[in-house]
Amino acid sequence: MALVKDVPAVVSIDAKPYAFTFPLKHTALLVIDMQRDFLLAKGFGEIQGGNLEAVQASIAPTKKLLEACRSAGLTIFHTREGHVPDLSDCPSSKLIRQGAAPNNTQHKLTIGERGEMGRLLVRGEYGHDIIDELKPLPGEVVIDKPGKGTFWNTTILHKLKARAITHLIVSGVTTECCFATSIREANDRGFECCGIEEATSGYNDANFKCATLDMIHWSQGLFGFIASLQPLLDALAPLVDSRGHAQSTPPQTPPGFDGDLSISSLQKAYKNGLSPVTLVETLYNKIEAYQKIDPAVWIHLESKDNVLEAAKALAAKYTDRTALPPLFGVPFSVKDSIDVAGLPTTTACPPLAHIPSASAVVYEKVIAEGALFIGKTNLDQLATGLTGCRSPYGITHSVFHKDYISGGSSSGNAVSVGANLVSFSLATDTAGSGRVPAGFNGICGYKPTRGLISFRGVTPACLSLDCIAISAKNVKDARTVWQLTEGYDVEDSYAKPPIAFERHVNSIGPQATSFKFSIPPPEALEICSHVHRRMFNETVKRLQAIGGTLTPADWSPFKKAGELLYDGTFVSERLASLPDNWLEKNRNILHPVIVELMDNVVKRQSTAVQAYRDLQAKALYTRQAEKVFAYSATGTDVIVVPTTPTHWKISEVLADPIRKNSILGEYTHCGNVLDLCGVAVPAGTYPVAELSGNKEDEGVLPFSVTFLGGSRMDATVLEIARRFEESVPSSA
Amino acid sequence: MALVKDVPAVVSIDAKPYAFTFPLKHTALLVIDMQRDFLLAKGFGEIQGGNLEAVQASIAPTKKLLEACRSAGLTIFHTREGHVPDLSDCPSSKLIRQGAAPNNTQHKLTIGERGEMGRLLVRGEYGHDIIDELKPLPGEVVIDKPGKGTFWNTTILHKLKARAITHLIVSGVTTECCFATSIREANDRGFECCGIEEATSGYNDANFKCATLDMIHWSQGLFGFIASLQPLLDALAPLVDSRGHAQSTPPQTPPGFDGDLSISSLQKAYKNGLSPVTLVETLYNKIEAYQKIDPAVWIHLESKDNVLEAAKALAAKYTDRTALPPLFGVPFSVKDSIDVAGLPTTTACPPLAHIPSASAVVYEKVIAEGALFIGKTNLDQLATGLTGCRSPYGITHSVFHKDYISGGSSSGNAVSVGANLVSFSLATDTAGSGRVPAGFNGICGYKPTRGLISFRGVTPACLSLDCIAISAKNVKDARTVWQLTEGYDVEDSYAKPPIAFERHVNSIGPQATSFKFSIPPPEALEICSHVHRRMFNETVKRLQAIGGTLTPADWSPFKKAGELLYDGTFVSERLASLPDNWLEKNRNILHPVIVELMDNVVKRQSTAVQAYRDLQAKALYTRQAEKVFAYSATGTDVIVVPTTPTHWKISEVLADPIRKNSILGEYTHCGNVLDLCGVAVPAGTYPVAELSGNKEDEGVLPFSVTFLGGSRMDATVLEIARRFEESVPSSA
Repeated sequence: MALVKDVPAVVSIDAKPYAFTFPLKHTALLVIDMQRDFLLAKGFGEIQGGNLEAVQASIAPTKKLLEACRSAGLTIFHTREGHVPDLSDCPSSKLIRQGAAPNNTQHKLTIGERGEMGRLLVRGEYGHDIIDELKPLPGEVVIDKPGKGTFWNTTILHKLKARAITHLIVSGVTTECCFATSIREANDRGFECCGIEEATSGYNDANFKCATLDMIHWSQGLFGFIASLQPLLDALAPLVDSRGHAQSTPPQTPPGFDGDLSISSLQKAYKNGLSPVTLVETLYNKIEAYQKIDPAVWIHLESKDNVLEAAKALAAKYTDRTALPPLFGVPFSVKDSIDVAGLPTTTACPPLAHIPSASAVVYEKVIAEGALFIGKTNLDQLATGLTGCRSPYGITHSVFHKDYISGGSSSGNAVSVGANLVSFSLATDTAGSGRVPAGFNGICGYKPTRGLISFRGVTPACLSLDCIAISAKNVKDARTVWQLTEGYDVEDSYAKPPIAFERHVNSIGPQATSFKFSIPPPEALEICSHVHRRMFNETVKRLQAIGGTLTPADWSPFKKAGELLYDGTFVSERLASLPDNWLEKNRNILHPVIVELMDNVVKRQSTAVQAYRDLQAKALYTRQAEKVFAYSATGTDVIVVPTTPTHWKISEVLADPIRKNSILGEYTHCGNVLDLCGVAVPAGTYPVAELSGNKEDEGVLPFSVTFLGGSRMDATVLEIARRFEESVPSSA
Repeated sequence: MALVKDVPAVVSIDAKPYAFTFPLKHTALLVIDMQRDFLLAKGFGEIQGGNLEAVQASIAPTKKLLEACRSAGLTIFHTREGHVPDLSDCPSSKLIRQGAAPNNTQHKLTIGERGEMGRLLVRGEYGHDIIDELKPLPGEVVIDKPGKGTFWNTTILHKLKARAITHLIVSGVTTECCFATSIREANDRGFECCGIEEATSGYNDANFKCATLDMIHWSQGLFGFIASLQPLLDALAPLVDSRGHAQSTPPQTPPGFDGDLSISSLQKAYKNGLSPVTLVETLYNKIEAYQKIDPAVWIHLESKDNVLEAAKALAAKYTDRTALPPLFGVPFSVKDSIDVAGLPTTTACPPLAHIPSASAVVYEKVIAEGALFIGKTNLDQLATGLTGCRSPYGITHSVFHKDYISGGSSSGNAVSVGANLVSFSLATDTAGSGRVPAGFNGICGYKPTRGLISFRGVTPACLSLDCIAISAKNVKDARTVWQLTEGYDVEDSYAKPPIAFERHVNSIGPQATSFKFSIPPPEALEICSHVHRRMFNETVKRLQAIGGTLTPADWSPFKKAGELLYDGTFVSERLASLPDNWLEKNRNILHPVIVELMDNVVKRQSTAVQAYRDLQAKALYTRQAEKVFAYSATGTDVIVVPTTPTHWKISEVLADPIRKNSILGEYTHCGNVLDLCGVAVPAGTYPVAELSGNKEDEGVLPFSVTFLGGSRMDATVLEIARRFEESVPSSA
């Protein structure tokens, strides 16, 4: 947990109609449409007859505002108004109304026509981009919007919610148009907005600016708040150093690496001058040391020289330490079912290995953000299993104890993060493969709603149920990697559309301190070990202590969906991606447990009729699960479950590999069948002896709970999980 | 076609910044939030300290405006601001911001608290409803909105597009808040808006009204137009009588029934005093006469006495002829796979018949709108077939010719509409069952995007591919029935969510006169008869003549999806809804062709592995088809296909029942596999002799084309189809 205790959580400034109070962690700056086309001579605005002097008045104050917010560590959103080159997102009314005025002498060129800075209001053109003074830094979000309102036909609602933003400081042009429209939209969606008077202006300030701002704060805050710039600058100034962001004078001696691999700590360290080369040197010592503790983590480990070279290239590419991409120099690993160009993808099944010419989309995305690839990690063969004991590359063990399983199938992913060898890892999760090993290694395992992150370039297990998962040190890091890797991939048949209507309002204010959660009924917890039940009961109490209300929920769709995955025909999809007779041909070179499993699937002789019945049942249970979540007064925000019912010893799994495995999936199997999102979070540790019953056993093992939500409810699930995580003492 | 040629299509009125010109058919009046809570003493507005006198000034002008627009036949939308009783759609910011002001003395009660007119701004409460003076009439759309903006978290964008509305006349309260926000939202979405100055007001008109309206029309129309009420009243006044709507003096003698069963004609006739009893008398003469021409249409025909009784009950229930529900006295039939409580549902398979205790959702919806149930119609057994020749209740023939097939499976539906026995019919469409028979009977067959109309209470054919279809006399009627029957049904596992994000801008202005369409490549048309090719070529020319641009499109996903339906495992889903061994047990009592078909399905011994492969292929082709539609400059608006490649004689089908059937589905099979919407529209007739090659054959047969669009693109598809329909001379 990277909780900075000495920074005030909440800031309050003078405003109209009364003080605007905002929680720093949940506040973003929204800079609207500060584009050349609107602000510079020969741009779209001037061509339409706009008064440039008036709009330019907002540039200098906005620059001060932006720099203060950056230094205070606020999330920054920029918007640009404009259209795709073929103008297919531009309504004809917008295109022609003003120019069609009789005796029009004012609107001389329309959108899409060519001005001196390129085609007017067209994406990709010079004039469409943000002015140099306010140029977005890497990691800041730029929203391209086709309308005046920032929320129409853009992903901003999703992006704000994903970051748990509830408060917006708003600036930009023009006051009467995009600024006011966006505040009205944000207000309807539940965001508390405060417009900054000096940092907004329009082409007709004499007539409109005052009325526009007055309407926002009239009637004791009809749409929100309006503040002056100086009180905000005064309030943010003291935060700069304590948050550790861009100081005016860099330290004279570059700092060393303090061992904290969380993404936010590394970002801070790199801004303060840490070299990625220094990081790599330290890291490889740890990796080499850990090879002796557990030699089964890596299927392919990059050579230290290679990684040093990559680190040097990064350092050479990004010389401005105030403008580093968010994953600059952040080390990561990749499950060996995910393609990295030029390296074999083995899926822990060497005869199946292929050397891809292109990397998986998710890999390319983190590389583009500056991340450092360390290697490919071990997994249960064919990504089939939840134990980590089904690989020809050896059996990984929990970072907590050498006798206990690491979990799988993303075994090496979780160990590489848990052992502090990388900051995060790219994994997959079909039946729990991203959640279970996270639980057994004391880290965060996040499985976003299926289809939000492209699955292209990954060897499928059950294609229609497969999902990318993220192994990370904490919820915040998992969220960061999610936001940097998500995005609609039209070439992925199962990708979800980029912009979805989101019914939920943004919960802020009093609601932010309370939430509803539900748990399985007592009989569904009977499968748990004694200590897992004890720890889960403590979790429930902890959730209640941080504002959670235990709410009844129908567990049956989750239970039935889990059974469907295990006992139904869905396992047949594992064979659907393989050639006919593949099993027969490869029987002798497959892991014996995998052969036994596959034989069982074949033996069932499942028919197409049964498959369609299962799919109808899946549709029904999915609908029933949707009803459980909070679309009504009786709904819940999250379902909370133990990530696993118990933690097996490696020896126990080897003695009874299939049954022991299936028990581990008790609370994870339903996840993708019901199109849920879920995140496994550490929830303390317990003495090994309490599980084993042997008083002489030493050490502790991690307990983990998983927060499950409905399709696309990731933002809610992550925020509740993060608050829970924050409440767990690191010694628990 | 009910095209009223003597009414001006476009009206123009004085406005700022210049004349507002609007096409009557595409214009709606939007009346915003004229609720007791905002306008009456003791309402929410007054409790918040609002100046009631100011807002009440808009009531009388709005009443004049509403009555003028009603009389001119404009579509009317009302909105109400408010929240569900548990306030789960109310952001906490909205709930508390104003009341939380220090020293607040103004905002005494908040949303959800109880005032004298019930809980404030809560749906279902007296205060939440619209004031008596402006009470919505049946058939007018009421949008309940949780925000200030009308488009946030409501279905209005979908509802406006579904009705092909492009222009909005806007009124209501309050000017600075919901009125202005809604115009800004509508403008972003491509609607041309004109606010009516006298018909809007706010609590602070002295300071805000003028500025708000000025911002809308400033800069030659930044957000739209502002007009005075009188010019609009003057422009609409002459339209009243010619459009035949509510005249001030009713005719002294109730009119007879002129034989025109289209919904809009019946609406007009009933408003003018036609009694539903008169209609039923006339109708039953026709029905009885047609029994002699084709005795196979009905499986169950309601007795004339029953229907007369229902007609009398309707007349007694709705005594105000200016406030009739939209389907008042409109006769309809129902496919006999759709439940009507108390009547057997046979699916043309008597041994399978059951008597449901509840009617299908879609049936209940049209009954609630005043429609008159006439009977249940014949179909291909188990809704399996496209010919109409597979029923123990006899073989229906095309209303054009007794030797030619009616098509199926919704055979009786199409014949009952085509023979003018009912106005519309509720059918189903899995592989083309709603489109093919429409094509063979000269009517419109519309299959909305799956999941928009509840399928609950219908005997499934292939549940995951089944879809309600509407048989109607023209596209406008089909659209009307769709809008009255659609709606999210949480108990239907395959229902689509109620509010979807819609990426497309509303195409108006110059774009409204042009569209892009694509057709199958020449080799895909080779299967067509000579005359079907000739007629299709003429259709292409006609589409080009009305502004269509022939655009290349990849036909392969449509082709492959059709093959998948026919040759793949999807047919196994037909057995999935039936008990095991059902076929063996019922073999002797099933139609022999159905037995042969089912045997073929069983013989394939399709495995679950094959089913999952097919589903992966389906996902891929669906994505490929999505790319074909207009999300980019190279995309198309609609795919246009012949509804069928030919038209068989009944004797031809009986001689070769399975192969002849499959040929008919060439252009329909892909529809539900790819989650498309589609509408079959008459496209002229051709001499029977041209098809048969026998010069002595007399008479004509109908040609039909189908317009196909992507998921939820119904509004676009229907509007292009309607314009095409308008262009086809009735003698063509």
